[in-house]
Amino acid sequence: MSWRHKDLLGLRGLEKKDIELILDTAAPMKDIIGRDIKKVPTMRGKSVVCLFYEASTRTRTSFELAGKYMSADTVNIAASSSSVVKGESLIDTGKTIDAMGTDIIIIRHGASGAPHLLAKHVKARIVNAGDGAHEHPTQALLDMFTIRERKGTLQGLTVTILGDIFHSRVARSNIWGLRTMGADVRVCGPSTLLPPDIAELGVKAYTRIDEALEGADVVNVLRLQLERQQKGLFPTIREYARTFGLNQERLKRCKPDVLVLHPGPMNRGVEIADDVADADFAAIEEQVTNGVAVRMAILYLMGGTSSGIAH
Amino acid sequence: MSWRHKDLLGLRGLEKKDIELILDTAAPMKDIIGRDIKKVPTMRGKSVVCLFYEASTRTRTSFELAGKYMSADTVNIAASSSSVVKGESLIDTGKTIDAMGTDIIIIRHGASGAPHLLAKHVKARIVNAGDGAHEHPTQALLDMFTIRERKGTLQGLTVTILGDIFHSRVARSNIWGLRTMGADVRVCGPSTLLPPDIAELGVKAYTRIDEALEGADVVNVLRLQLERQQKGLFPTIREYARTFGLNQERLKRCKPDVLVLHPGPMNRGVEIADDVADADFAAIEEQVTNGVAVRMAILYLMGGTSSGIAH
Amino acid sequence: MSWRHKDLLGLRGLEKKDIELILDTAAPMKDIIGRDIKKVPTMRGKSVVCLFYEASTRTRTSFELAGKYMSADTVNIAASSSSVVKGESLIDTGKTIDAMGTDIIIIRHGASGAPHLLAKHVKARIVNAGDGAHEHPTQALLDMFTIRERKGTLQGLTVTILGDIFHSRVARSNIWGLRTMGADVRVCGPSTLLPPDIAELGVKAYTRIDEALEGADVVNVLRLQLERQQKGLFPTIREYARTFGLNQERLKRCKPDVLVLHPGPMNRGVEIADDVADADFAAIEEQVTNGVAVRMAILYLMGGTSSGIAH
Repeated sequence: MSWRHKDLLGLRGLEKKDIELILDTAAPMKDIIGRDIKKVPTMRGKSVVCLFYEASTRTRTSFELAGKYMSADTVNIAASSSSVVKGESLIDTGKTIDAMGTDIIIIRHGASGAPHLLAKHVKARIVNAGDGAHEHPTQALLDMFTIRERKGTLQGLTVTILGDIFHSRVARSNIWGLRTMGADVRVCGPSTLLPPDIAELGVKAYTRIDEALEGADVVNVLRLQLERQQKGLFPTIREYARTFGLNQERLKRCKPDVLVLHPGPMNRGVEIADDVADADFAAIEEQVTNGVAVRMAILYLMGGTSSGIAH
Repeated sequence: MSWRHKDLLGLRGLEKKDIELILDTAAPMKDIIGRDIKKVPTMRGKSVVCLFYEASTRTRTSFELAGKYMSADTVNIAASSSSVVKGESLIDTGKTIDAMGTDIIIIRHGASGAPHLLAKHVKARIVNAGDGAHEHPTQALLDMFTIRERKGTLQGLTVTILGDIFHSRVARSNIWGLRTMGADVRVCGPSTLLPPDIAELGVKAYTRIDEALEGADVVNVLRLQLERQQKGLFPTIREYARTFGLNQERLKRCKPDVLVLHPGPMNRGVEIADDVADADFAAIEEQVTNGVAVRMAILYLMGGTSSGIAH
Repeated sequence: MSWRHKDLLGLRGLEKKDIELILDTAAPMKDIIGRDIKKVPTMRGKSVVCLFYEASTRTRTSFELAGKYMSADTVNIAASSSSVVKGESLIDTGKTIDAMGTDIIIIRHGASGAPHLLAKHVKARIVNAGDGAHEHPTQALLDMFTIRERKGTLQGLTVTILGDIFHSRVARSNIWGLRTMGADVRVCGPSTLLPPDIAELGVKAYTRIDEALEGADVVNVLRLQLERQQKGLFPTIREYARTFGLNQERLKRCKPDVLVLHPGPMNRGVEIADDVADADFAAIEEQVTNGVAVRMAILYLMGGTSSGIAH
């Protein structure tokens, strides 16, 4: 089976078989990351441009290594600090990158919908690496890969997403993806950090953490954007940590084999306690490895040859 | 035939056969960009350092991809923001890069003549990627390649360069190159943006756009540096657009098969109208592709092997 | 013989055979830099991440080219300007890079001991590319390689290190390495720029340059951090140059075949006179080439295969 779409803009609208295709393809990719020689020729002669309008080390490095492990040519454009911003529209920038022979553009942008706009105007395939508070599909895919790896399935699991749901593209992509895959999704945070359209997303919203964790199979803890506090969206960081921080005591409400995820970077002692972050039931470093695997899978599905990949 | 020079510092002083060699070599390079697998081994084991003292995404990415498509090792040094600037002279920086085994240095610098100074002191070959208001030879070469591709020849064509001629290295390199290739060159802009030495360049200067466009085969529209307006070099952006902006109405003065070029990034609605930029007789995206091809040709002529290149 | 350690954190504590292994391995690597095709497959499928918390062009480019010449995948993270800094600990950043399948992390950090902390928490091998005022082992190794290349040995030589010893990681690594290799080390600078623990390092300290140079085989001139002057650590730059700047006259005190080194970038006319920097008895550009060779040797010893390397 192959990827039916031109782009990967978000998990909303994808079907179960689309998501399964990526997750299934990521498994042999993960094997490559574990090899002594991490190099397959599948993307040789393909060019991947990372066009990042927001600073990012983690996601950009993950995509860059995913490309390099598969022999792609990768180029970074830090658009925030470059001449791209002086007056040129996103569409013209995209057409320029397109005309250079680029096969895949990985875009991160502060504005929701920017990857979708770009996708309409360029021949290159577009992968959304985070747009505003909208979607971050590869993060959600790596979260789902990690859950599936540990639990065997996503179907029927109860997943609690904890933190600033309102501003989180990670939360939004997880909600779309998990729901499609048959999971039961709960969100929990201060009422000021819950989106008003939460009911439409088909999830249950909680403002009391103990209730949200009751019987959960998975807890996905979001990074708290500390700068939100200054905008008065929650009382103080200490107060947030006390009321919503995930610790061992609270985890007792979850299933005994609970799995804890965090997209990183973590504010240890704020949204997650040290002994939770480093526990065996947390998979935070595994998520990072899986992120490279999932991104390899997506790049491969968008234009790689199968040489070097064991299926 | 092979490249007779060590460096490519500007189009002034190059002979017709030098320019033709580059344009002729760029044609098979363009085929490579169109291939499904964009990878030839011609520059394998050669190192190309992009030393950019001015921010640039477009030109740097074009050179970087040109190198990667030919299997060169490419390294970027953003000298403006790096330790290079703290006290070290350009010559010492160049000698350092040279001593690392670099084969070709691509330099962009705010000072006219910087690439020439560098070229005198290093063993690596130097390609000028823009120096002050002096020259930007690869941009002019891609412009000429695009004209030749569309018109079959440069000889005898009337080319009008429109905009801020005074501050434009693109204009200056185009003038030198086009004149050498036998084109008839006109420049047009507000009198404050025309260079005082214009007569010496062998071109005709116009301050009225309709006269400058009369019977033109090609119009090369320069990007307006909007910050010049603050320095009082033209009345207002709106006034500039009204007086010198290229639109469909004005293009009627040109030959029916006129070709419109722009080096990008465009200020749409200022120096160029939307329906001109996106018209079939404009070749703005094609210029970008040709830019990669021309840069591949230059890198190849400066040290590649012919394996993988179809002549 | 192979590298007995996981990391390269500093020259303190290394044995003579460790240092000799690196210097011996660097010699065939230098041959590769001189080849027409600078490419060996020894690090193919290995990933090297340059994690730089301080801006650096020279050292980062040297490591990057060293990796590329050996076919490694190299990725740069400019941590100072990136999202890495917002709240994430060095250990968590390191674990993230580790989890992406990175084989070697090259780290530069403003805090002494940062590479050591990182090394304790990640599986990837760590190379210290400069930590605070502590160590810069690869710089000292290239200095020693250069001395050995010119003098045949390090044993029994008198090496004078000149400048701001107190703040210099280059000085500190040179002292450890040179002492281990049997050289006699002198340091010289204004008393405000000499470390209080100098006696413990087993070197002789001088505040009068003529005495420090008397009979020296090698003079290693440190870069003067001009911003120190504002902190009152020396009178004025002019005064420093007059009292401690290395010039031809002063060099007469040294052995007739004296060798002059400088790690670069140089403040010409401050710590070193022009006619000294450019003299045949100075090896400043050679040091740069040797720097790439030494770094190739280290990367190779940490995980390369021997294909393509002539021993």
